[in-house]
Amino acid sequence: MGREGQLIKELARAVPSAVGRRKAGRSSGARVSLGIGDDAAVVVPGRKADLVVTCDAFCDGIHFLADRHPPDSVGYKSLARATSDIAAMGAAPRFFLLALGLPQRFTHEWLSGFLRGTRRAAKQLGVVLIGGDTTRSPLVSISITVLGEVAPGQAIPRSGARSGDVLYVTGALGRAQLGLEMVRNCPLSAVKSSIRSQNRILSQHLYPQTRLKLGQWLGKHRIASSMIDVSDGLSTDLGHLCAASGVGARIWASRIPSVEIPASRAQFARKYKLDPLKMALHGGDDYELLFTVPRRLAKRLESAPEFRDITAIGEIERGKQILLVDSDGRTKSLEAGGWDPFR
Amino acid sequence: MGREGQLIKELARAVPSAVGRRKAGRSSGARVSLGIGDDAAVVVPGRKADLVVTCDAFCDGIHFLADRHPPDSVGYKSLARATSDIAAMGAAPRFFLLALGLPQRFTHEWLSGFLRGTRRAAKQLGVVLIGGDTTRSPLVSISITVLGEVAPGQAIPRSGARSGDVLYVTGALGRAQLGLEMVRNCPLSAVKSSIRSQNRILSQHLYPQTRLKLGQWLGKHRIASSMIDVSDGLSTDLGHLCAASGVGARIWASRIPSVEIPASRAQFARKYKLDPLKMALHGGDDYELLFTVPRRLAKRLESAPEFRDITAIGEIERGKQILLVDSDGRTKSLEAGGWDPFR
Repeated sequence: MGREGQLIKELARAVPSAVGRRKAGRSSGARVSLGIGDDAAVVVPGRKADLVVTCDAFCDGIHFLADRHPPDSVGYKSLARATSDIAAMGAAPRFFLLALGLPQRFTHEWLSGFLRGTRRAAKQLGVVLIGGDTTRSPLVSISITVLGEVAPGQAIPRSGARSGDVLYVTGALGRAQLGLEMVRNCPLSAVKSSIRSQNRILSQHLYPQTRLKLGQWLGKHRIASSMIDVSDGLSTDLGHLCAASGVGARIWASRIPSVEIPASRAQFARKYKLDPLKMALHGGDDYELLFTVPRRLAKRLESAPEFRDITAIGEIERGKQILLVDSDGRTKSLEAGGWDPFR
Repeated sequence: MGREGQLIKELARAVPSAVGRRKAGRSSGARVSLGIGDDAAVVVPGRKADLVVTCDAFCDGIHFLADRHPPDSVGYKSLARATSDIAAMGAAPRFFLLALGLPQRFTHEWLSGFLRGTRRAAKQLGVVLIGGDTTRSPLVSISITVLGEVAPGQAIPRSGARSGDVLYVTGALGRAQLGLEMVRNCPLSAVKSSIRSQNRILSQHLYPQTRLKLGQWLGKHRIASSMIDVSDGLSTDLGHLCAASGVGARIWASRIPSVEIPASRAQFARKYKLDPLKMALHGGDDYELLFTVPRRLAKRLESAPEFRDITAIGEIERGKQILLVDSDGRTKSLEAGGWDPFR
């Protein structure tokens, strides 16, 4: 067996995987009849489900820094962020494929760490590796395809927001950016010790939690009219949602749940001019959900899982403008200021 | 709209694509109900089909040379080689996702050329772009996921070869390697003029033709017991097939259809020690099909499409050895000498 063959075996052992021919299960959901080790995987679709599929690239120097980010965070995050797109459709993630490009020197300890993180994410997210590709590459380059399932016609698109709908977001925004600024700007030794001590500020940046349960609940109960995950930043992702729906929106700065900067980081935040509202508006990588609910259904949200993490931040309006009402009641246009890899 | 948004629009315009919400078609096959422009695509599976899915990485410096290979060849080949894995399952390709990492300076002319090649391949192969990801990247890095369909239980695995089965291969092997050697070793100006004049030797290397029709025919008529595409080289891929099936094989050197070196390239071949048999045994990238047929079904192959391109090169045996009988009748063990990115 060649080195690539060994590597594929290592991957399949390290991560929850479907290998080779698989017996039929009893589940009515999609199942794998042929997993890792062939030219392609074979999936037998569930009887009453649509298939949801997404693909996400994660590259050294762009999305993470191989010399600063711990390898298990790279593994965890690459899978979590791809799966977050499935959550944003209201679907249940089931399978994933991993295309992994690695420099030779990353194929030992680094790879073990990466796979440890991928395994933890796969278990938490309930996904199974069914295929992919491995290759040598000058830089670490990861591409993950995730397949999920949703009841027919129940996927929640970006395009369903209507004037009058209430706009909600989960969690606190800007947490991931604060973590990123620490990883970027603190001395490497301080970063490493913060990671070891499981520093809370770093956690959403390194090991983002996705809102799978809530996403599926919103799909199942047909409560959300539109949804997107906040991956590029609120200002940019709200722009995507409004553009897809052909609507505008008005949000209130005072209602936006933003990251709290702990007293111990106040000096750091001042030095790097880190403003909680700006980070909440434009910081990416939080993987929270941004969704709209027709006003008559808003009350039903109270029975949602993670209801206490949901905040109404504004409403959908006619037109195309996205407006931000500041704490003094002044209204201004909100420009997309989030992540754009080509800017 | 940000630069990434513009890029996605450019992709969707350039390549056969499913964008946004799609109306139900009448076809009984899988269809897209939500295409490019959302967090994920939604596929409504066909009523009576299994889904086949594969993912393939294609990187500058490893699989191609961005400064030597024409961009339209990179686009064409990245999609063709991923789709070849679907052909090797006996399935029909339907949809693809493209994760594209590009340095900033590649986002203009180079990208146009790339998309021209991708479009040509997509049309020939009958696939439609339904999603993906675009990002800046220090090097051109492409990952393609292809989804296909096959009648339930009809996918042809690598693992079905049995002792006594006849081993077949399509086309002539080693053509792609001869082309690669020319691209690598000839002066850049000569390479460019050969490409312009559509040199036949270069064609399988730059614009590989896949065996979709034959693959599907073999699946539909349940004639092949196992199949793989020759992407890493005959010696390596036959090894994969035999390992998956738990069998050995015996092949005859004199029967292996190998690339013909034209007289005009004889000197070049001597200089670089390019031997047709060695290239046929170990050269990768041909994307021909290697498959086994139970002896009692061999006659039926005569009605296969592209039957004239099919050659019986050996047979499956008990045990684990892969043996090569040379032109003098001597038998020796055939070691895997094909492409392994980590060797």
